[in-house]
Amino acid sequence: MSRWQPNARGRLEQAALELYVERGFDQTTVAEIAERAGLTERTFFRYFADKREVLFWGQGALTELVTKHIADAEDSASPIDAVGAALRATGETFKGRREHARRRQAVIDANQGLQERELIKLSSLAVAMAEELGRRGVGDPTAKLTAETGVAVSKVAFDRWINASKDTDLAQVVVESLDELRALTAST
Amino acid sequence: MSRWQPNARGRLEQAALELYVERGFDQTTVAEIAERAGLTERTFFRYFADKREVLFWGQGALTELVTKHIADAEDSASPIDAVGAALRATGETFKGRREHARRRQAVIDANQGLQERELIKLSSLAVAMAEELGRRGVGDPTAKLTAETGVAVSKVAFDRWINASKDTDLAQVVVESLDELRALTAST
Repeated sequence: MSRWQPNARGRLEQAALELYVERGFDQTTVAEIAERAGLTERTFFRYFADKREVLFWGQGALTELVTKHIADAEDSASPIDAVGAALRATGETFKGRREHARRRQAVIDANQGLQERELIKLSSLAVAMAEELGRRGVGDPTAKLTAETGVAVSKVAFDRWINASKDTDLAQVVVESLDELRALTAST
Repeated sequence: MSRWQPNARGRLEQAALELYVERGFDQTTVAEIAERAGLTERTFFRYFADKREVLFWGQGALTELVTKHIADAEDSASPIDAVGAALRATGETFKGRREHARRRQAVIDANQGLQERELIKLSSLAVAMAEELGRRGVGDPTAKLTAETGVAVSKVAFDRWINASKDTDLAQVVVESLDELRALTAST
């Protein structure tokens, strides 16, 4: 069992999500996850620090992706357009992952500790986005306001996406949600 | 010491905040808070379930206030205007409390567990606001989007208010932040 295992991370992630849904997050052990994946606990710990990290390991890559797209936006793009483009581009990378995202969300919704972790994740993302806007020359409080608004839009878009009756693209829902934000703030 | 103590809650809150700033939240005990306030531990527990609640007991009243003002907004008010009016009216109630708010925020910023609690508070506030908008006949996702955006605006406004070089009204900063949101979402 110490040989390299093809797609060990993916298999462990899949096994963990199944077990979290079936038994609850707190009731699942790393030993059970490894067993379900046909791998050893040692292999599990080569990929994840603990069973919570199975749900959050993508955070670093997500933040990097969003901030990279903010940095890459055209110089002429307004702060909200730079953020909108970044969220749309990031949404593209979720293609084909809706079922996975739904399951992950169900596990998080059922556990307060995981909800707190998810909120910390979104809050850190807003801080990173505001900093990246700052590097584009956007001053505060505009940078913070745009970043927090961007996170608000992506929360709502994500929620719509995973709860939609048919499979849609997250990127498309992000665009719609941002358009709706424009419409609702324009109405007085 | 078992007699009624005038303004026991306020004295305990003041003593707790002082100690949290001086020693850190984790390093402060209920016994020390009670002693600093010149009251007994028993009195402390008559007002607060634990030392964390000293920082969060106002949450219920805050949520009630915001949702009441959303409910009271004129029928013709758009969702974002109902939320804006509610946040402004709630901001009014913070008059004269900036020093207290700054201290409280410093304590929270220094402790990850308290930050998580604060994020949960804001997330619950967004849920309550969306529900209240729903009772006004606002459908989803507009209700959720407006509520999340409202919370984003109030986070940024609160941050500006406590960090401003001179004392200003939170209500005024809320109005400015909302105006800025309108301006930045209108720009393309």
